[in-house]
Amino acid sequence: MTEFRLDWERAGRTGTSEAVLCEPKSAAQIDAIVGHATGLGRRLLLTRLGARKFSRLSLPARDALDYDAGTRTAILGGLPEVRGTGRVAIVCGGTSDLPVAREAARTLAFAGEAATLVADVGIAGLWRLMERIDDIRRHRVVIAVAGMEGALFSVLAGLVPCAMIAVPTSVGYGVAEGGRTALHAALASCASGLAVVNIDNGFGAAHAALRILMGTPAADERPAGASPFNSRSRR
Amino acid sequence: MTEFRLDWERAGRTGTSEAVLCEPKSAAQIDAIVGHATGLGRRLLLTRLGARKFSRLSLPARDALDYDAGTRTAILGGLPEVRGTGRVAIVCGGTSDLPVAREAARTLAFAGEAATLVADVGIAGLWRLMERIDDIRRHRVVIAVAGMEGALFSVLAGLVPCAMIAVPTSVGYGVAEGGRTALHAALASCASGLAVVNIDNGFGAAHAALRILMGTPAADERPAGASPFNSRSRR
Amino acid sequence: MTEFRLDWERAGRTGTSEAVLCEPKSAAQIDAIVGHATGLGRRLLLTRLGARKFSRLSLPARDALDYDAGTRTAILGGLPEVRGTGRVAIVCGGTSDLPVAREAARTLAFAGEAATLVADVGIAGLWRLMERIDDIRRHRVVIAVAGMEGALFSVLAGLVPCAMIAVPTSVGYGVAEGGRTALHAALASCASGLAVVNIDNGFGAAHAALRILMGTPAADERPAGASPFNSRSRR
Amino acid sequence: MTEFRLDWERAGRTGTSEAVLCEPKSAAQIDAIVGHATGLGRRLLLTRLGARKFSRLSLPARDALDYDAGTRTAILGGLPEVRGTGRVAIVCGGTSDLPVAREAARTLAFAGEAATLVADVGIAGLWRLMERIDDIRRHRVVIAVAGMEGALFSVLAGLVPCAMIAVPTSVGYGVAEGGRTALHAALASCASGLAVVNIDNGFGAAHAALRILMGTPAADERPAGASPFNSRSRR
Amino acid sequence: MTEFRLDWERAGRTGTSEAVLCEPKSAAQIDAIVGHATGLGRRLLLTRLGARKFSRLSLPARDALDYDAGTRTAILGGLPEVRGTGRVAIVCGGTSDLPVAREAARTLAFAGEAATLVADVGIAGLWRLMERIDDIRRHRVVIAVAGMEGALFSVLAGLVPCAMIAVPTSVGYGVAEGGRTALHAALASCASGLAVVNIDNGFGAAHAALRILMGTPAADERPAGASPFNSRSRR
Amino acid sequence: MTEFRLDWERAGRTGTSEAVLCEPKSAAQIDAIVGHATGLGRRLLLTRLGARKFSRLSLPARDALDYDAGTRTAILGGLPEVRGTGRVAIVCGGTSDLPVAREAARTLAFAGEAATLVADVGIAGLWRLMERIDDIRRHRVVIAVAGMEGALFSVLAGLVPCAMIAVPTSVGYGVAEGGRTALHAALASCASGLAVVNIDNGFGAAHAALRILMGTPAADERPAGASPFNSRSRR
Amino acid sequence: MTEFRLDWERAGRTGTSEAVLCEPKSAAQIDAIVGHATGLGRRLLLTRLGARKFSRLSLPARDALDYDAGTRTAILGGLPEVRGTGRVAIVCGGTSDLPVAREAARTLAFAGEAATLVADVGIAGLWRLMERIDDIRRHRVVIAVAGMEGALFSVLAGLVPCAMIAVPTSVGYGVAEGGRTALHAALASCASGLAVVNIDNGFGAAHAALRILMGTPAADERPAGASPFNSRSRR
Amino acid sequence: MTEFRLDWERAGRTGTSEAVLCEPKSAAQIDAIVGHATGLGRRLLLTRLGARKFSRLSLPARDALDYDAGTRTAILGGLPEVRGTGRVAIVCGGTSDLPVAREAARTLAFAGEAATLVADVGIAGLWRLMERIDDIRRHRVVIAVAGMEGALFSVLAGLVPCAMIAVPTSVGYGVAEGGRTALHAALASCASGLAVVNIDNGFGAAHAALRILMGTPAADERPAGASPFNSRSRR
Repeated sequence: MTEFRLDWERAGRTGTSEAVLCEPKSAAQIDAIVGHATGLGRRLLLTRLGARKFSRLSLPARDALDYDAGTRTAILGGLPEVRGTGRVAIVCGGTSDLPVAREAARTLAFAGEAATLVADVGIAGLWRLMERIDDIRRHRVVIAVAGMEGALFSVLAGLVPCAMIAVPTSVGYGVAEGGRTALHAALASCASGLAVVNIDNGFGAAHAALRILMGTPAADERPAGASPFNSRSRR
Repeated sequence: MTEFRLDWERAGRTGTSEAVLCEPKSAAQIDAIVGHATGLGRRLLLTRLGARKFSRLSLPARDALDYDAGTRTAILGGLPEVRGTGRVAIVCGGTSDLPVAREAARTLAFAGEAATLVADVGIAGLWRLMERIDDIRRHRVVIAVAGMEGALFSVLAGLVPCAMIAVPTSVGYGVAEGGRTALHAALASCASGLAVVNIDNGFGAAHAALRILMGTPAADERPAGASPFNSRSRR
Repeated sequence: MTEFRLDWERAGRTGTSEAVLCEPKSAAQIDAIVGHATGLGRRLLLTRLGARKFSRLSLPARDALDYDAGTRTAILGGLPEVRGTGRVAIVCGGTSDLPVAREAARTLAFAGEAATLVADVGIAGLWRLMERIDDIRRHRVVIAVAGMEGALFSVLAGLVPCAMIAVPTSVGYGVAEGGRTALHAALASCASGLAVVNIDNGFGAAHAALRILMGTPAADERPAGASPFNSRSRR
Repeated sequence: MTEFRLDWERAGRTGTSEAVLCEPKSAAQIDAIVGHATGLGRRLLLTRLGARKFSRLSLPARDALDYDAGTRTAILGGLPEVRGTGRVAIVCGGTSDLPVAREAARTLAFAGEAATLVADVGIAGLWRLMERIDDIRRHRVVIAVAGMEGALFSVLAGLVPCAMIAVPTSVGYGVAEGGRTALHAALASCASGLAVVNIDNGFGAAHAALRILMGTPAADERPAGASPFNSRSRR
Repeated sequence: MTEFRLDWERAGRTGTSEAVLCEPKSAAQIDAIVGHATGLGRRLLLTRLGARKFSRLSLPARDALDYDAGTRTAILGGLPEVRGTGRVAIVCGGTSDLPVAREAARTLAFAGEAATLVADVGIAGLWRLMERIDDIRRHRVVIAVAGMEGALFSVLAGLVPCAMIAVPTSVGYGVAEGGRTALHAALASCASGLAVVNIDNGFGAAHAALRILMGTPAADERPAGASPFNSRSRR
Repeated sequence: MTEFRLDWERAGRTGTSEAVLCEPKSAAQIDAIVGHATGLGRRLLLTRLGARKFSRLSLPARDALDYDAGTRTAILGGLPEVRGTGRVAIVCGGTSDLPVAREAARTLAFAGEAATLVADVGIAGLWRLMERIDDIRRHRVVIAVAGMEGALFSVLAGLVPCAMIAVPTSVGYGVAEGGRTALHAALASCASGLAVVNIDNGFGAAHAALRILMGTPAADERPAGASPFNSRSRR
Repeated sequence: MTEFRLDWERAGRTGTSEAVLCEPKSAAQIDAIVGHATGLGRRLLLTRLGARKFSRLSLPARDALDYDAGTRTAILGGLPEVRGTGRVAIVCGGTSDLPVAREAARTLAFAGEAATLVADVGIAGLWRLMERIDDIRRHRVVIAVAGMEGALFSVLAGLVPCAMIAVPTSVGYGVAEGGRTALHAALASCASGLAVVNIDNGFGAAHAALRILMGTPAADERPAGASPFNSRSRR
Repeated sequence: MTEFRLDWERAGRTGTSEAVLCEPKSAAQIDAIVGHATGLGRRLLLTRLGARKFSRLSLPARDALDYDAGTRTAILGGLPEVRGTGRVAIVCGGTSDLPVAREAARTLAFAGEAATLVADVGIAGLWRLMERIDDIRRHRVVIAVAGMEGALFSVLAGLVPCAMIAVPTSVGYGVAEGGRTALHAALASCASGLAVVNIDNGFGAAHAALRILMGTPAADERPAGASPFNSRSRR
């Protein structure tokens, strides 16, 4: 019996291709999957592949993979041409949230989408975010990455009109340990229209962004200069 | 001192206008807000306004509001022209989830966006969803509404390429009581690219959809016939 | 056997006088306490006294009390001269948080301390807070009151140098229900030096503020020979 | 004093024999139990025996045991003739769930029951499950093994008439960490008639299947005069 | 749009027919469902229909239903001939657990299966269970119903060889409030082979029993060519 | 079938007689139990019998019972002679904890044991406890009753040599709501030798005290040849 | 500044002497405490002292201590004469619970109290407990030690009249992980009069037993004029 | 892109300077931050820097830092003159709480504030606290540090009039594991006016104390024209 059956048709169905979550898999299982995909000439993204487990993979697998220890991701088959640019901003509360932010960036790159990374704009020093806010507003999708109390999500959602995806991280201690506080803060935000993914799930946020970007509105379906709401005062 | 300061500029900043969450407010506070908005000639959406509290509002407020008991929403100033159509599908696991689904629909209508409501396609009888899946796939954004174990979220996300927003509901008992199980199922879904809002938050899901729809990609920025992924087989 | 023993010496020991938490007490118990204090000519603050329970008190008790239904507080013996002014600001995220904010204000008033109430400056519309921030900074203690995701706590703590006390409220639904999300957000704030009290505990925040304002009490303000184990039995 | 008393009569009473849960036991305790069973010529199943602890057992114990590191199980006294076949299917959501699925298979094998293992049919790619569904339906008992959001349980229960046992696994991260989300999803399933065992409890699922398969045991299969308080000492 | 789509084919697919969970539905929704089923001449089981909500149903619906307030169940279309007898025992820890036990019995009766009810054999007085244990052992499936600490589940599973389904109930207070303690006790039982359903889910336990009793259905009992994606549209 | 089987032999086996927990039982069930006990001429203690439910009992039941609304207890058959005196002290943190404290006292009285009630000695005013500490120390068992943060348990356990039983109460709000904080404080106390019962379980604390006081029963007090599994042979 | 102040007078006040909880302390801190006690010629019990940390203690400390790795306890100054015998039984559900049971036994021995250890009488094989029940009943205090679902607590409490102390252990996995399930089962037991200590707290159970056994101390055993707040005047 | 942007202006805005939380940062990130600050000639406090991670820093970083393994803090640029003295007392329940207490002390020292450390005054031996209470009362701010059940917080708050900050620690096991019990005890305290920080957050308690001590800053101590949105870009 084979232990795995990859869902190569997923991109056609859902717009996002299957990836391999390595954390709960054995090195032998990952080796087999990489070998199988190599045989088929398929590209593949591997996530949550720790450095120790990577070092236990077979030599051919290690050679075939473009591995990045910081984000614990590996790519088989290289990156495609960058197709989209300037459409996704990844906004990151603190230095400690960067590995998750970069997992999102790398997942986007695997799909040919470039992203603008805006780092260390935690709201304890609000001026840092304010200096970048006009730049952030120009993007179509904003992925916000923050741990601890996750106040960045609400502040940002109150300032930009973009589609917003919040990625709570497990950065924090005490009541913030494990990321539940940031997750709940994102879900309970007083700023509306914020959509949320699982804790530390930079990969999932990137896939949500790809679903949003793909869409298919014809240009004439979009109201010119449109705001969905009537409003006299504008900023 | 005034007790409230409405953020009329919000739509300009964020693309979604402020609404009034009525559950934790007193009837006197709601009366004052409705009176204030009426005086300014502003439209306003009120959510989570129970029938009992609505009946305690002043007569002028009740007269001015278009109230819907099922969704506990009220609208001041009427609905705008329908601007968008066929862009949002609201897919609903069970009959019991309909109030939340309709809160989303009404919030969209307040912003001039029509929605297709697909009801009672819970996955215990998968054929019901399968009969509607081709129709659902045609929309740009899918809002999925489900309680209990929330398996609908994963099944649907595995079948459509649309931007997807999951709204877990508090429908259920025992371990499902309060909606945490459905919420966690949406966040932990094995199908990627699913974005999630708070339990029973049909309003927030609609606002997330509006942010997505507003976007602003020029036609030439979108890949023709595009899937972000290379894929030979298609379905 | 008497059912209660009031700790009249508490103010001498701790700088804050005893109050009566009415929620878990029967109307008969409250009646007895009010009668006892009246007999001694003592002032008394009662908290969490719902309108229904107040209406079940004896007529003399109701007559003796200055009752406020909004904050569920009652005061026996009237308010003192205002001693301090402009030292405490109470900053309130939303209209729904006002009852808790006002419980704090009334507790301060019972101790002769006036407070500046800054209402409805939720951070979803950050400009509202910014308009008031210079005024807020002038106070020595800031009591911040917010529910839902409690992002106000962090934003405010990053902007003012005052002693800060966060009061999370139970305003919210879904994951915010009951106030745990706001509480955890306050505790896990990335902005440091924020001190926190229990959910909906406006009373406790006011007492914390009084302790801060008192500083080291002058000798003549303290009861002579005040020992923590005051009175008859001594060690 | 002896540290353990094995319940050799359990199979007579309950249809399933006692097994040794090794995780919380010391190597010395396991050694003693294996030695004791060897002396009596009894067969024995050991579960949750990690590779490191196995390596610390005495040489005779290690020699006597048929150890499988993947499932962390060891068998003393070999496997019996296969008695049943084609009666149990073990259906497994992802590659990562295989160790738990195989613990169930090995527990069944210890009791002489063969099982069909259907691997990697996670519902994110529903076609994988559909290809196997007719085969699965032919079994009398289906053990479903899945982690993360556990949507497989509901989908499968809606498609087959078999007795169904759900085994949630601890595969997942963030809100899925530890397996509670999959557990609650199984318990709260909208598809009825699903019975659930503890997280990662492949062993327990196999025993539940054995109880189902046994049905009412024929009189001659039960120990004569079997009383729940069997054996030597009686009351 | 219709608000509901009943899954009449479910019994063919899964061996257990659809039922209507009334708690989260409005009286109007239930009225419509009952009317629809009556029109089709279908039998229907309704669960968690409180007396107050039943009294708010339309007169025709109330007339058509056989309502039982104690179990909060209603049956449309009467009971079938009793098909099975003496195959299921329902064993109940305390008097307070009887409503849940009887919901299970009534669900079985709806499917033509009689059950033996063994009441008030809580293990604080173990002799009560011992007096009945030989009778219980004769059944093929035992449904055990208990709240508080749920010790009955383990004691019983250690004494009988039957297929066992535990139904934890919400009977209890303090740490037992809501039924989590009994649920966890059932899942963590030291007696193996116990399968568990959601808290207070007598209905689900009955369905699990029906799946067990059905075993592999004879070919002529299954709808010809039954496919899980039955009917008109296919993919 | 009878719905209940009272365990009249319990006192012989365990030293504490069975009581009827009324909260989860219907008025009809309680009526039947009271009638049954009356018929047998047995004394009976009923707990958690709210005033509303008591008022729904049959007239004969109400007449037969000595009901106390404050503690929600009822006694059938009157109180025995006081056997023990001065052996148990019940120490109560606040006025709000009195109903639980008195449930313990009444349970003791039902068994012929008098108790000293020491009320309102919460540790926020430590001198109140200090005034009574020498008296408390003279008792053999101390039942401490406290809600909120339960600091009384630790302070008291550090001051007296008596057997100590902590009863956490559900008095409190915010994080103290429901009594978990007081419960955990009792269990995690830095003062050792404290034993704990369920939240609000004054009844259980009294029974624990009775077990302690009984000590090893004299031979003539125990039934000859008493076996725990003996219903026919009776004491 | 000294880092610790041992409470040598505790035994006089509370009947149980202070012990040193080593888990959260550094090796240097433990060394200092042992040295200090050695200098004073005091006996001392150390708990939760892991083998690794013990090995990091200074040589004199290691030499002075009687260390037992299984229970992670160490004793300074040797054991006293056995004072009591046959008064405490320690009843243990499974082999895995033995370390906690033995921590209790060793704590009792430190106080001169012998205990009867009854091991591996888990209720999945009830006959094992029944064989020992008459012996267990003869003791004055029973300490019951069990993990997983903790059903032993209820079964035992229903069978013996002794003072009973339940020690839930962290033995188990899935929902039983960490011991909360066993703890809640003990607290919510349907068998009354059971008192409970913290998870894995064999030490605390022993101290609770010692308080029970001591009963009211004879006058000459208590320090004359002992006041709890007296450090200078010493017993 | 730079990974970090230090908020050097924070002290001007909030009275407390930024610090570097090292736990979730990589050694490379910390190296870069230290290098950057060194280049600017800035002082810097680093917290939660474990000994192992410190040893992985670059040699120049290690040389530049004044590292203290016990508190896991490091200071760059030395300590300032002591400005305040005798204004803050740090009161510590047990020896195990000392690392957190000293993190607070070192954070205060970094800001030029001396603190009085009162160690090992846990309330199980109340006399230890009583010996020091008069000294403690003389301070303006009391930081109380305690784990387990946190009863110290309430006892102390009932005895002193100072501003009080509670720091719950993660010292404890079973239900106290992780510090939630101590945290909730502090928040739910029956002694009013207690303000609380996150678990193990000695750093945050020190910052809260500094905010309290600062009071309203003199105009010349604040940066001229300081606006929270300082600097270049504004909206």
